[in-house]
Amino acid sequence: MLEADFKYIIDTFFTLFAMVLIIFMVPGFAMLEAGLVRTKNVSSVLTINVMIYAVASLAFLLVGYEFAFGSWESNTQSIWAAFMFQMAFVGKTVNVMSGGVSERVRIIPLAIFTVIMGSFIYPFVVNISWGADLLAGTILDIDMYDLAGSTVIHSTGGWALLAAIIIVGARKGRYIGDKIRVIPASNIPLVVLGALLLWIGWFGFNGGSVGSISSVENANLVAKTIMNTNTAGLAGAIIAGLIMYFRYKLLDITMILNGALGGLVAVTAGPDLYDMYTPILIGAVGGALVVFAVPLFDKVKIDDPVGALSVHLVNGIWGTLAVGIFVESISFIDQLKGVAVIAVFAFGTSFIVLFIINKFIKFRAEDDVQVEGMDVDECGVEAYPEFKRAI
Amino acid sequence: MLEADFKYIIDTFFTLFAMVLIIFMVPGFAMLEAGLVRTKNVSSVLTINVMIYAVASLAFLLVGYEFAFGSWESNTQSIWAAFMFQMAFVGKTVNVMSGGVSERVRIIPLAIFTVIMGSFIYPFVVNISWGADLLAGTILDIDMYDLAGSTVIHSTGGWALLAAIIIVGARKGRYIGDKIRVIPASNIPLVVLGALLLWIGWFGFNGGSVGSISSVENANLVAKTIMNTNTAGLAGAIIAGLIMYFRYKLLDITMILNGALGGLVAVTAGPDLYDMYTPILIGAVGGALVVFAVPLFDKVKIDDPVGALSVHLVNGIWGTLAVGIFVESISFIDQLKGVAVIAVFAFGTSFIVLFIINKFIKFRAEDDVQVEGMDVDECGVEAYPEFKRAI
Amino acid sequence: MLEADFKYIIDTFFTLFAMVLIIFMVPGFAMLEAGLVRTKNVSSVLTINVMIYAVASLAFLLVGYEFAFGSWESNTQSIWAAFMFQMAFVGKTVNVMSGGVSERVRIIPLAIFTVIMGSFIYPFVVNISWGADLLAGTILDIDMYDLAGSTVIHSTGGWALLAAIIIVGARKGRYIGDKIRVIPASNIPLVVLGALLLWIGWFGFNGGSVGSISSVENANLVAKTIMNTNTAGLAGAIIAGLIMYFRYKLLDITMILNGALGGLVAVTAGPDLYDMYTPILIGAVGGALVVFAVPLFDKVKIDDPVGALSVHLVNGIWGTLAVGIFVESISFIDQLKGVAVIAVFAFGTSFIVLFIINKFIKFRAEDDVQVEGMDVDECGVEAYPEFKRAI
Repeated sequence: MLEADFKYIIDTFFTLFAMVLIIFMVPGFAMLEAGLVRTKNVSSVLTINVMIYAVASLAFLLVGYEFAFGSWESNTQSIWAAFMFQMAFVGKTVNVMSGGVSERVRIIPLAIFTVIMGSFIYPFVVNISWGADLLAGTILDIDMYDLAGSTVIHSTGGWALLAAIIIVGARKGRYIGDKIRVIPASNIPLVVLGALLLWIGWFGFNGGSVGSISSVENANLVAKTIMNTNTAGLAGAIIAGLIMYFRYKLLDITMILNGALGGLVAVTAGPDLYDMYTPILIGAVGGALVVFAVPLFDKVKIDDPVGALSVHLVNGIWGTLAVGIFVESISFIDQLKGVAVIAVFAFGTSFIVLFIINKFIKFRAEDDVQVEGMDVDECGVEAYPEFKRAI
Repeated sequence: MLEADFKYIIDTFFTLFAMVLIIFMVPGFAMLEAGLVRTKNVSSVLTINVMIYAVASLAFLLVGYEFAFGSWESNTQSIWAAFMFQMAFVGKTVNVMSGGVSERVRIIPLAIFTVIMGSFIYPFVVNISWGADLLAGTILDIDMYDLAGSTVIHSTGGWALLAAIIIVGARKGRYIGDKIRVIPASNIPLVVLGALLLWIGWFGFNGGSVGSISSVENANLVAKTIMNTNTAGLAGAIIAGLIMYFRYKLLDITMILNGALGGLVAVTAGPDLYDMYTPILIGAVGGALVVFAVPLFDKVKIDDPVGALSVHLVNGIWGTLAVGIFVESISFIDQLKGVAVIAVFAFGTSFIVLFIINKFIKFRAEDDVQVEGMDVDECGVEAYPEFKRAI
Repeated sequence: MLEADFKYIIDTFFTLFAMVLIIFMVPGFAMLEAGLVRTKNVSSVLTINVMIYAVASLAFLLVGYEFAFGSWESNTQSIWAAFMFQMAFVGKTVNVMSGGVSERVRIIPLAIFTVIMGSFIYPFVVNISWGADLLAGTILDIDMYDLAGSTVIHSTGGWALLAAIIIVGARKGRYIGDKIRVIPASNIPLVVLGALLLWIGWFGFNGGSVGSISSVENANLVAKTIMNTNTAGLAGAIIAGLIMYFRYKLLDITMILNGALGGLVAVTAGPDLYDMYTPILIGAVGGALVVFAVPLFDKVKIDDPVGALSVHLVNGIWGTLAVGIFVESISFIDQLKGVAVIAVFAFGTSFIVLFIINKFIKFRAEDDVQVEGMDVDECGVEAYPEFKRAI
């Protein structure tokens, strides 16, 4: 057998394996968010998650993939496997965004935005970062190192979320004057299940982004990438737990998990470049950033029920810059420029698109719909119709 | 290393990978069905799901595999991997059937039926479709193309279900005169989790059914199969959502997911043969069929709490015929004949076996047991003993 | 391509695949235990599960791995993959232990114990069984066959649990005089989901422990190992179900699942050595042992809310001895010696470490905290705040 054929076969198989792990993030995000919101909004949140996977993926199949990569071609592995791997990413940017406007966002306008995100906004970001590179040679050309998308996926989703929060506003009754009403998560086992599925999916996300396992060098690189990814998650969880314990004597599992996710986002830009100890530091900073950012966003009345801005935007930025700080061969300035260009583009286009859609179909549910819960009005299906509500 | 050895190793590994994905369908079906039934029947439904996996798989190990394939032999990959892959299929036919008679079927007679399904009925269907082919040369010899079982798995289970519904009857109180009592799903997050695990399992089901990934051609075929499988699921979900929205202005997530599953069933007969756009059509029709079939079955008082007939039987037929419609080299008549022969066999033998078992041990729980819930009488374990019931 | 390179690549990929399956045991244990305890202790149990994964894994990265294996080296696959695979095991021993002291154990002292378990106790057991072998040449040198850890993982965790139960005591109100208060599981779907995820993880645990899939012989061995693992689980579930049915006419799903897990633990010592029928016997005995051991432990007032001693300790011993009984080339005496040496070491060191920690920070929550539930005091997060409690 030709060596090239061997590599083609192994890398196709490996990419399919990595892709499947990422698809576990679909139930991952769904369960995480279903657990974090109130029972009256659970069906709505779940419908949004399934809608995002269906709509963003089909948009990427029909339009986005070619826009991002310029063509349907590959010599090193099956193009269908390569497509499925990239397709598994696209919904994640919308997941980041939709999670943060849970409990008041309506599904139909969100579906329209998902079409545009999956067809154009996200593919353009991929294009200039990993793909055909439309901006090559221009002053906006970016040369950022971002293995698996601290910026390309997580910050992009985070900027879209910030734009969405500005347009949609806070949940009815969340901020009354200077008082912040605490709204507890309704189903903690789902939160844990979801976060752990995301964690597992991350192995595919980052490991698969190495792009090939079919040489000894790449096999080592894939394995190190997965190990470093995991290590940052461990450190993020531990730091978040320690801070919670020393500040409040309480181990809030939702914060610990968001700390882990923060660490995972942060390491995502360069897990292949670090030695085995650096991810401990990167993940620990990531976990700490989450714990401090969550109340900060609340203080400025940015209402994000799942902590998505803290996890994905803050740590997407931190993680991308961290590559410039900890890896000698990577220019900090290049990283910063990448972060900035994509920030402007992702926030700008998202805001404009959201603003226009919002002129025709309001994103924000009416106050009485929010009070009754989104499920009745949008889905006609209660999540737990037989359980008597204590609240 | 010999090329044959390389292929043996890779294909063994690949088959194990595909098998593991299919095993995720065990929790997939369990969660889906546990979410769709009322809380008082959840433990029973879960017990049935675990029983099916255990009983059907062991029956297939002891009897069914050899009946289906004639011998325990393989030159192209480990026979143990090949067995595990096929074993992962067998319980699915019973899952399809048991789901549709939920909330009134008793476990012990169902376990007896499972033994016979796993030992003889399903293995015979495999024998004449994919295996040793006992009917070769007879007038009943079938030459249907069914890559991963639109007919072999899904229709077979669907016909068994139809036989079972005739024998077991509708749930107590479901149809009163001409009125249909709507019985809502009790736990929507479980429904979503289960459906998404099934979706992921389908990648293994269909991708693994290609049988080999160890050549460039096969690697492409596996990847295309998985992509096309996914695409049909996307289209099924979107169409079901659109129909729900335009008819009722409500996005019922259970219907959207059943639409996705309908699309997945429909594409299963030929995902390796289609170009990348055909599955959109096949899946869309599949999703639409589900939305229209569910109320239709209710109208004729066929009580199927999880929509299994619409998803698996209707789309199993549609998907098998679709190969004859969309693929030039496949004869529509051959497809039709395959559907018909297996329909007669699966419905006939299932009905006879169910009828005989029913003479000795009644499948249907007494009315008062149904009212109290199956869990107390059959399991002695309530699913959610601490949650106060609103209904 | 060099054959050695091919093997290196394939085995790295295979080890990563097996590792990912094992990581599914993290949500597996978390969901199983969250489902088995009362709602008031669910957040605490979940926090413990996440803490264990984070703390034990990081301790193993920083200290334990090198202690167990003597060095960070491998010629046959990526050392990072080998590490991740071994790291996926370490938390399991603490999971076994923490599950059995649920509903009264406090998180902080448990986290301290986890550091020591992940750094020293478990690595020492690995060292003398699979690793550098510090005791080689001494009278305590063991020569036990234990492919994937019936003793190394499951008994070790079981002995640590026995030590912990002695120190922590039974749950408040569990035994009053001679009366045993039955405390039902609060969420059966989570129990089923968790057990099935563990089952899937076991394929990686045992299959991956073969260590290589990159020859025809090893490919067969891996596939047979996975098949035999599964078969023992099937048999354990069926036997537990049959015993429950013939004794009580009730199919208690929690007992059926513990029977399956018992079968899986039992087969873990030698799934590569058995023919395809022996695991039926080994699993059946394993399942029966669980059904009989659970009430026995209760009779002597050893309070183990999840049945971990019956599943992991009893079957860890049975499974290790079974290799000596059913495999001619394996000495029963060697197996017995291995079981005994590790019993003394694991119980002894765990007891001493737990005893010392307990002098400074009490493991056992105060009675009033137990009555109110661990979640309020330890986590500040209720698991299901919106569901009205019936009890």
